[in-house]
Amino acid sequence: MFEFVVQDREARIVIDRGTRRNAVPVAGWNELEKCVRAANTSKASLITITSADPASFCAGADMVELHALAEDGRMRRKFAGSMDSAFGWIRRTNKPTVALISGGCYGVGVALATACDIRVARPDADFAVTPARFGLSYPQTDVEALVRLVGPGHAARMIYGCEHYDGRAAERLGLVELVDEGEDLGRDLIDRIAANASSSLCSLKATMLGRWGSRERFETSFASPDFARAAAQYRGGRG
Amino acid sequence: MFEFVVQDREARIVIDRGTRRNAVPVAGWNELEKCVRAANTSKASLITITSADPASFCAGADMVELHALAEDGRMRRKFAGSMDSAFGWIRRTNKPTVALISGGCYGVGVALATACDIRVARPDADFAVTPARFGLSYPQTDVEALVRLVGPGHAARMIYGCEHYDGRAAERLGLVELVDEGEDLGRDLIDRIAANASSSLCSLKATMLGRWGSRERFETSFASPDFARAAAQYRGGRG
Amino acid sequence: MFEFVVQDREARIVIDRGTRRNAVPVAGWNELEKCVRAANTSKASLITITSADPASFCAGADMVELHALAEDGRMRRKFAGSMDSAFGWIRRTNKPTVALISGGCYGVGVALATACDIRVARPDADFAVTPARFGLSYPQTDVEALVRLVGPGHAARMIYGCEHYDGRAAERLGLVELVDEGEDLGRDLIDRIAANASSSLCSLKATMLGRWGSRERFETSFASPDFARAAAQYRGGRG
Repeated sequence: MFEFVVQDREARIVIDRGTRRNAVPVAGWNELEKCVRAANTSKASLITITSADPASFCAGADMVELHALAEDGRMRRKFAGSMDSAFGWIRRTNKPTVALISGGCYGVGVALATACDIRVARPDADFAVTPARFGLSYPQTDVEALVRLVGPGHAARMIYGCEHYDGRAAERLGLVELVDEGEDLGRDLIDRIAANASSSLCSLKATMLGRWGSRERFETSFASPDFARAAAQYRGGRG
Repeated sequence: MFEFVVQDREARIVIDRGTRRNAVPVAGWNELEKCVRAANTSKASLITITSADPASFCAGADMVELHALAEDGRMRRKFAGSMDSAFGWIRRTNKPTVALISGGCYGVGVALATACDIRVARPDADFAVTPARFGLSYPQTDVEALVRLVGPGHAARMIYGCEHYDGRAAERLGLVELVDEGEDLGRDLIDRIAANASSSLCSLKATMLGRWGSRERFETSFASPDFARAAAQYRGGRG
Repeated sequence: MFEFVVQDREARIVIDRGTRRNAVPVAGWNELEKCVRAANTSKASLITITSADPASFCAGADMVELHALAEDGRMRRKFAGSMDSAFGWIRRTNKPTVALISGGCYGVGVALATACDIRVARPDADFAVTPARFGLSYPQTDVEALVRLVGPGHAARMIYGCEHYDGRAAERLGLVELVDEGEDLGRDLIDRIAANASSSLCSLKATMLGRWGSRERFETSFASPDFARAAAQYRGGRG
């Protein structure tokens, strides 16, 4: 249900389970993790996550399995653990990650989007975090990711009120960074990122994640081949 | 000076001291805390805090007592301690909290509003944090709550510059989540929250607060009666 | 290359190296630190940082020296260390700090702006964080300051995509708190801050920084001469 392809400097993961509006079954999270790990070790400079069906980015957990989850504690632990592990790989990959969101984005679909560094959405995307409507809770890490993006007040309004937000409203909140009406969703930003030095992107991502050694990374970046090339161009009048 | 009433699933605390523009005297904080503790153990699903007088949500600490505060260190400690305790109860109650703000909201009135999860304001509400105009400081916890909502830059501008913001300006800053011109301030959002499963609201609030056990709360929510009901409805075609 | 002047209650630091678009050479950071330390012990109530040339606030590190940085590890450590020390003094000074930004603000120029409490910009200011274009990284502390202002999503977009933002776009992101078209950039806000009690500004800044003793500062502010004066005015009907 996930496709993975590397094209030029972009590793793209595509959610393709249109018959269930891209709802993710319990077994799907492990498959997603495998894609992210493959993307992480690929030669790509950045990772994008999007859907094959423009009508649905991700409808969340698959409701068809929820009856089984209600009755089987082991399955619940597998669900929570494998989802958390997949999102952890997305958060801690060494490349910038961009979610490209078209159509519905609900429940843990929002958690998937907030696990990425940047979110680009269609104006008619539709966001909602609705566990409270179904008697459910929401993972701590995903609550915290939401709070970091929209602040505790808007996170509370989303989570307790289960309101829906389109792309523009989500942008005003800080839930998405960019609304894009162009044909190829997010293409300008993807190309801008891909045009930059991959050594820089890797160092900057490690710094954003607070990884040990940021000071060394900053200082030694001045001794990198990528910088030598840029400095030579600058002296040649192209800076 | 505080009224407390539970109606349907809403526990409402009303500030009613119109003769002093709802300024809170030293003895008032303890009374507020009692209301919050009663609301916390009530059967309501959420707590709202509002004012009887639409011209003034809360004018802050009562200036009439400030002369006494200047001279009496024991009274200052009682003031700071009882206010901090009341706000602590608001922050740590197990239900979502919504401040409904009409009219003036000044000084520790803003601290009261930021202690709630969500803020709904009238367009002509008037916010200002003005201790610097009076030679005063502001409690650390309340500074931090403000920073979490509006960021350190806007918090600095508010606190050092003592500027006033109406409802729409406060919304742009992130100080309020919703501006409402409707007759019954905040009613749509209150009803949306109250319509959700109270077990979910309680679990989600605990998760927002970072309380121990969020993973168990998430996993066991799938075994809750509220979820069983929702899943049955979903299979019946109403999901 | 930095001028320092105290006028009334404002200590102003002016970046004046117009021939290099106010790019800061390695030796410049130590000079900036000296200005901030002088401002810190001056009688001023607040510190402003601005540029002599309205076309350029600060172009970042001086590219002319970058070749030398590439080859000399000791110079790199001096650069990183002295810049970090200067920004540390800006962050931890005991007075409110305001960056007044006109024209270009690039690379570590943005780090200089985010080290201040508040940013006021011209509508046609131009912001970009571009280390990834040059094969470089960015200091951890400055990444964190950016994240606190604009959130992790917009920080990622800025840092990985190297996009440019004018004053209004920067305001929407939270990178600047105020866009000002007036003749004397930021004058209203500066005067508002300067009009407040300097004892309050100092206590509030310490509270914003999370310095030890905020509770005592809050309580004892009620016994301050500044408050006694304000309370007397209030009782006289001017409150």
